[in-house]
Amino acid sequence: MTENLTTVLKQKANNLRVHSIISTSEAGSGHPTTCMSAAEIVSALFFHAMRYDPQDSHNPNNDRFILSKGHAAPLLYAAWAEAGIISAEDLLTLRRIDSDLEGHPTPRLEWVDVATGSLGQGLSIGVGMAINAKYLDKSDFRVYVLMGDGETAAGGVWEAVALAAHYGLNNLIGIVDVNGFGQSQQSMYGFDTDSYCRRFEAFGWKTIGVDGHNMDEILGALNGAKTTADRPTMIVAKTFKGRGVSFLENKQGWHGKPIPKGEQLDTALKDLGPISPNSSFQTEKPPAPSPVAEPRISAVGPPEYQIGEEEATRNGYGSGLAKLGDANPLVIALDGDVKNSTYTEQFMEKHDDRYFEMFIAEQNLVGTGIGLSKCGKIPFVSTFAAFLTRAGDHVRMSAISQANIKYVGSHCGVSIGEDGPSQMGLEDLAMFRALPGSVVLYPSDVVAAERLVAEVAVYEGIAYIRTSRPKTPVIYANDEQFPIGGSKILRFSDSDQATIIAAGVTLHEALKAYGQLKVDGISTRIIDLYSVKPVDTKTLLNAAAATNNTLITVEDHYPEGGLGEAVLSAVASEGIEVHKLAVNGIPRSGKADELLEAHGISAACIVRKVKEIC
Amino acid sequence: MTENLTTVLKQKANNLRVHSIISTSEAGSGHPTTCMSAAEIVSALFFHAMRYDPQDSHNPNNDRFILSKGHAAPLLYAAWAEAGIISAEDLLTLRRIDSDLEGHPTPRLEWVDVATGSLGQGLSIGVGMAINAKYLDKSDFRVYVLMGDGETAAGGVWEAVALAAHYGLNNLIGIVDVNGFGQSQQSMYGFDTDSYCRRFEAFGWKTIGVDGHNMDEILGALNGAKTTADRPTMIVAKTFKGRGVSFLENKQGWHGKPIPKGEQLDTALKDLGPISPNSSFQTEKPPAPSPVAEPRISAVGPPEYQIGEEEATRNGYGSGLAKLGDANPLVIALDGDVKNSTYTEQFMEKHDDRYFEMFIAEQNLVGTGIGLSKCGKIPFVSTFAAFLTRAGDHVRMSAISQANIKYVGSHCGVSIGEDGPSQMGLEDLAMFRALPGSVVLYPSDVVAAERLVAEVAVYEGIAYIRTSRPKTPVIYANDEQFPIGGSKILRFSDSDQATIIAAGVTLHEALKAYGQLKVDGISTRIIDLYSVKPVDTKTLLNAAAATNNTLITVEDHYPEGGLGEAVLSAVASEGIEVHKLAVNGIPRSGKADELLEAHGISAACIVRKVKEIC
Repeated sequence: MTENLTTVLKQKANNLRVHSIISTSEAGSGHPTTCMSAAEIVSALFFHAMRYDPQDSHNPNNDRFILSKGHAAPLLYAAWAEAGIISAEDLLTLRRIDSDLEGHPTPRLEWVDVATGSLGQGLSIGVGMAINAKYLDKSDFRVYVLMGDGETAAGGVWEAVALAAHYGLNNLIGIVDVNGFGQSQQSMYGFDTDSYCRRFEAFGWKTIGVDGHNMDEILGALNGAKTTADRPTMIVAKTFKGRGVSFLENKQGWHGKPIPKGEQLDTALKDLGPISPNSSFQTEKPPAPSPVAEPRISAVGPPEYQIGEEEATRNGYGSGLAKLGDANPLVIALDGDVKNSTYTEQFMEKHDDRYFEMFIAEQNLVGTGIGLSKCGKIPFVSTFAAFLTRAGDHVRMSAISQANIKYVGSHCGVSIGEDGPSQMGLEDLAMFRALPGSVVLYPSDVVAAERLVAEVAVYEGIAYIRTSRPKTPVIYANDEQFPIGGSKILRFSDSDQATIIAAGVTLHEALKAYGQLKVDGISTRIIDLYSVKPVDTKTLLNAAAATNNTLITVEDHYPEGGLGEAVLSAVASEGIEVHKLAVNGIPRSGKADELLEAHGISAACIVRKVKEIC
Repeated sequence: MTENLTTVLKQKANNLRVHSIISTSEAGSGHPTTCMSAAEIVSALFFHAMRYDPQDSHNPNNDRFILSKGHAAPLLYAAWAEAGIISAEDLLTLRRIDSDLEGHPTPRLEWVDVATGSLGQGLSIGVGMAINAKYLDKSDFRVYVLMGDGETAAGGVWEAVALAAHYGLNNLIGIVDVNGFGQSQQSMYGFDTDSYCRRFEAFGWKTIGVDGHNMDEILGALNGAKTTADRPTMIVAKTFKGRGVSFLENKQGWHGKPIPKGEQLDTALKDLGPISPNSSFQTEKPPAPSPVAEPRISAVGPPEYQIGEEEATRNGYGSGLAKLGDANPLVIALDGDVKNSTYTEQFMEKHDDRYFEMFIAEQNLVGTGIGLSKCGKIPFVSTFAAFLTRAGDHVRMSAISQANIKYVGSHCGVSIGEDGPSQMGLEDLAMFRALPGSVVLYPSDVVAAERLVAEVAVYEGIAYIRTSRPKTPVIYANDEQFPIGGSKILRFSDSDQATIIAAGVTLHEALKAYGQLKVDGISTRIIDLYSVKPVDTKTLLNAAAATNNTLITVEDHYPEGGLGEAVLSAVASEGIEVHKLAVNGIPRSGKADELLEAHGISAACIVRKVKEIC
């Protein structure tokens, strides 16, 4: 390294420290000491090692940077200021309601792909981007992920670590900023950087230990990482929180505290010295994006079923996804070692270059999907609905990241039968409804399942499709359409006494109940509410008006947060009577039919309820 | 090992295989090949190595066994049959709706502490039990956790691995059944048992590799594990799925498939040979439980605040938990490196022998809590509400386990301010409502917070308390009681035009709105719905009847699954008009007041809504 380069980068690192302190003091909140331990690392990355074009955030060949330790956001913003991407004055707007420089990075900012701040997720997202570069786009860009030491306690990190080695992601470079402290105390391993190296090595990574404040060592490590041929690299950097300021460096009690204006701020700025004038830096520019042909997207092949044929909606998902894969080269499928149950395997059999096995590691399953979505792919992320709760926080953050990601949860409800409650998805509608901007879909037959797979592929944003294990009859013609936000009125007359609203397995129970009630002289309207979010409010209100203002909802889901409450919310302000049937109590093993009855959502239960009300 | 012992244990292992096959074939579903790889291990544990009294499942000195690979349930049940705990005929009722021998073990069974079946959770639960033995009860019992190889891809396992080493849990013994296959394909590492050993060792465990079908090696390893002084032990056993039956052993495609009755079942039983007659076995009996004095539980000290004093409910949690700790020696506190934000640190400062730092690893935070609860402790599990979603599946399973565990989520809502959406709990009410048997509580001031901490300690089951970051005024007298399922009517008159229902931060917004509306001549009733589940339906219905059948709910939470939908569900069948105010859109950084306004839940927003309706 030329002495010039090292000197310039060190000056820039110091500038980053000054900016981090000033911006957080101005904001009155933030994490300056966290920023200060990683200043040399970020300087080395942004002003030398990363290959990117500061004038063009959209160049698909840019190296990617993920600030997994998201609370160091001021450091990232400072790097942009030093790179000329934003102005130093902008930094003073940190955390204000009218500034996009939020407390933790979100993709409101053009240079941020994913929201971070919930620790332990960044590496998974990096895995997704690295997979995209290496296996899909065959692009040279690298992915850099900066983590804190405390955050490596999070299991999601080790899911990503294992998979990255398994897929030989040599284009993924992680850096752990070992400053010895978490938020409230010393981290588990303190400054024992060997422990970090041993663990990453044991999982198959190359590791390089450095003094995180020695610019030459950092530059050497980053160079070394670029040449690793067959495995990802983890740079383990020993650092000090609050580095550079006498009363902060390696001192406890300053996590998440800005330096108060006045004497303390003055002392800090004096310790650091003035901002060096903006010395020019040179990063390698990536190749200009080659003119990429628009991906050839054709129409998705239609369903091909017979009315009355018995098939499970999970199978409709499988065949629908395979057809979608034929039609759209951007569609990628990820699954958590249950592809022969979710039927993602049908996609894999036709498009194995676009299928990635993620093993029993659902947090990384989702994080990788988020990373792929941010590279312009359309990832379908599948496992049992119940196991998507394992990735609850990654799913939550995917909404804040506004990721274009499609979740599919199979084996919903008690209707899975004998495997019992550990395998039953009974809270997934609640989980996916409570995501801003999501759509939640629940097909009742395989035609609907195939159609909805195609629908969500062209919907921009988070979508969730819920599929069932048991076979149910085909009730829709192959050319039936299922727009998001719609519903289907399957039975109606002029003398309906109530409307029964259901989806999935309970829709078929409702249809059976319809028949039994008709025999007993009670006419009911039946609605398939395949779109649980957004719901078809207009149809619900019309149905209520036509049927004594009486709605009955039936769902293979717990009573809270699901289809029933979705209907309630839609009609709430109109004073309509809604009766909710849902799974009562903790379910158990048994035959599907027995469980539907025991847990209050079978045809017989519906009939009883209707008779009780009408 | 005497040849007799080895022979007997091998015979018993074979019996276990026969039972596993017969019971699953009878049930028509289940995972026999998964059972068959672990038969020697389970035989060695149940008929020699574990110290327990088959006549007394409640002896607190029994060694504990957790079947983390829960789908091997038939193997566990077979072990009980061979131990004389149940009969061989009972095994034929596997998976029936009227049998407690469910598809995956649940604590309906007296010998099962926790429900398993969602892979990767058992080791965390074992950590909780081991912590209890070593640090709390000072008991000699050991904890054995049997995992599959595929499940060690789950990050939650590595959270437990790290923490177990950190706390020197030498009474925790894990066994990984490396049969090379997950559900749908070969596991990531296949039969490379060295890779497993390297990784566990790197995390600080002692590891012992064995041939999982060599009884002498297994016995040697289990003996060796018992003598390890300062660290937990992982036994890594190389095995074959389907071991013992020619057409099953190490063959793909048989995961989760019972052997069909008829020719295949006959061949399998022929390969295994007949059940050996029940040879006697000797396990070491644990000491009889010493007469344990009833824990001295005294009254919890009351809150000591002044009406109008400003304090955050998270602080009320902290002081309430500390007082509870004074009063009840069974209370344990766990936190995820945010104790100086959740204020669990106030408990730690007074009772540091009952506080355990769990670091940034929320899955293990929850799993450990479940384990402690199953040892008769009352664990309070705390972190930011948003980060509890990281443990969504462990929380889900805690309900199926009917664990007596208390969750506390701080920093709920947009009212946390500048840290921004990654730190805001906005879906936690939905998550915790959708758990069978849970109670969900949301104190509006510190008096309520302290009282509710005491309430949940005497409630048997899952409880969730939601706390806020900003300071709000004390509105209750120190002797106010807050029964679960209750509510507080804070303002009312004979001419109220609508009822506003809120809790936490928005309750104070509602009180402000009340004042503004009164000035404008509109009288409203104000209800503090501190009990979100169960809700005080009676009070809600009375209020509706008295106020034009018009209810307005306001919550610092997304619109789905929270307080508003809880009210809706309670009054649904009565045709009452409910208007719901909740956080709209993806929140952002900003001052708390600005965010309440921007996201539709401030006093001004409430006033606007009331005027619009009335």
